Amino acid sequence: MSLAGSPAAMSNPRADRVREVARLAGRSGRVRAGQFLAEGPQSVREALRLHRERAAAGGEPVVDQLYATAECLDRSPDLAELAQGAPLRLATDAVLAAMADTVTPQGILAVCRMPHATLDDVLSRGPRLVAVMCRVQDPGNAGTVLRAADAAGADAVLLTEGSVDIFNPKAVRSTAGSLFHLPVVTGLSFGEGVDTLRAAGLAVLAADGYGATDLDELQDRSAARRLAPGAGNDGGAAAARLEAPTAWLFGNEAAGLSDAELAAADHRVAVPLYGVAESLNVGTAATVCLYASARAQRRG
Amino acid sequence: MSLAGSPAAMSNPRADRVREVARLAGRSGRVRAGQFLAEGPQSVREALRLHRERAAAGGEPVVDQLYATAECLDRSPDLAELAQGAPLRLATDAVLAAMADTVTPQGILAVCRMPHATLDDVLSRGPRLVAVMCRVQDPGNAGTVLRAADAAGADAVLLTEGSVDIFNPKAVRSTAGSLFHLPVVTGLSFGEGVDTLRAAGLAVLAADGYGATDLDELQDRSAARRLAPGAGNDGGAAAARLEAPTAWLFGNEAAGLSDAELAAADHRVAVPLYGVAESLNVGTAATVCLYASARAQRRG
Repeated sequence: MSLAGSPAAMSNPRADRVREVARLAGRSGRVRAGQFLAEGPQSVREALRLHRERAAAGGEPVVDQLYATAECLDRSPDLAELAQGAPLRLATDAVLAAMADTVTPQGILAVCRMPHATLDDVLSRGPRLVAVMCRVQDPGNAGTVLRAADAAGADAVLLTEGSVDIFNPKAVRSTAGSLFHLPVVTGLSFGEGVDTLRAAGLAVLAADGYGATDLDELQDRSAARRLAPGAGNDGGAAAARLEAPTAWLFGNEAAGLSDAELAAADHRVAVPLYGVAESLNVGTAATVCLYASARAQRRG
Repeated sequence: MSLAGSPAAMSNPRADRVREVARLAGRSGRVRAGQFLAEGPQSVREALRLHRERAAAGGEPVVDQLYATAECLDRSPDLAELAQGAPLRLATDAVLAAMADTVTPQGILAVCRMPHATLDDVLSRGPRLVAVMCRVQDPGNAGTVLRAADAAGADAVLLTEGSVDIFNPKAVRSTAGSLFHLPVVTGLSFGEGVDTLRAAGLAVLAADGYGATDLDELQDRSAARRLAPGAGNDGGAAAARLEAPTAWLFGNEAAGLSDAELAAADHRVAVPLYGVAESLNVGTAATVCLYASARAQRRG
């Protein structure tokens, strides 16, 4: 990428613009601006890809401001190429460090527009697999669940009221770009949300260490329906079928799902623990559950 | 628990003993002392359980020193009961804070003896499922893989030379007690280790995003052998069978497995990515792979 003719790199870490960007590390700053930070090549690359797709489709911008060092763009020709479609300003490392929440944003940082997906938007596309985080508190856990949902091909991720802000910089980093891969609905009212999901035809499964239904049992029944049909493996009309459209509920990392949340589910499903461990962390449990559904739905 | 007659709580955060314990947060301190720190109720509880089991069997102690506040023991009767089998000293919050690597060790901390499991010890027990971390660098990732291995009922976790020190306090915390549930062998020489595992009858599978073998395919074949035997689902003599004794190789989080590591494996197996995500984090990949093996081995 030729930077000849570009304006000089921003070099004053105390400039008003720098302070404005830095405020996006805090929740009130994000709410006021309707923007959030994506830091580092991995997140910014996915933001820029979505930005380009949206631009081609005439949609809303994803990246409102892009800041990078010349060195970073020299080092990463793919980023430099993607950056051409975004409002880029070159900046020094000191400016980026002052803008960023991380110690080192690795030479690139984007100010992104907060998305406004709603549950209705999600449902209008006929989703088959949805992950619902119920009061998950840790940004790293929330990011891991979102990344697992993306890998498993989930159609959306929902976060109920009282969950961590998925747009906080630590959560954004731990999604490793997946935040830009699928719709994320935040501030969901749990009761209304579950009713709406069920009305749209999704089975609501609660991931619950004490659940009466064993996930391996469900996987075996699903595999048997594919591999040995007619062998009476359907488990009855009331049993959960992993290949059906499904919303998984994942609970708070310390307390799990509340009694009310469990009661709202169609089935409570336990991930088997084969060793001595007493529980799984929420990211691990979500991975196993979402992959079990994805496999059942896609290997048909 | 009655604390009547106990010596007074340690209250001087600058005492020599406190400094000695605090040195265990650093690698050189751990190597010199042959000890490491377990902080907080979850880790300490599992350390004390193993300590009690070992004592009952006449084995080596696990907990060399135990420090707790009276409040913590009052709050957690199960911990107080377990603590009776260990060399307990009461201490103030200030003393615990000075000893600990965490901001708050939540009132309890144990100095544990570094275990000395060897690959020969592990193999002498006829393991069926082993996780090998190859140069994994992040303590949180290493802890997550270890916890997933425990949940999946793995028989051991091995870490090759150049991996993060699993006894560093952050790694210990992220294992959530699983460090005390299964043998952990560190400093493994990769080449020798793989040869030894294979000679002991374990298939060596590399988790590799670019692997030619699809994990779902292996799971389907394994399920078919159970559910529809005789249907010609064996995939040929050379195909990997998930139900066979297996050692999984998991690579460095940034670079994955090296070419040499991949070449040493019997099969390179990819976890399918159903969505837009380009990769899985190592904890997520390990969870999917280890659970796939555990399911195939245990649902027979």
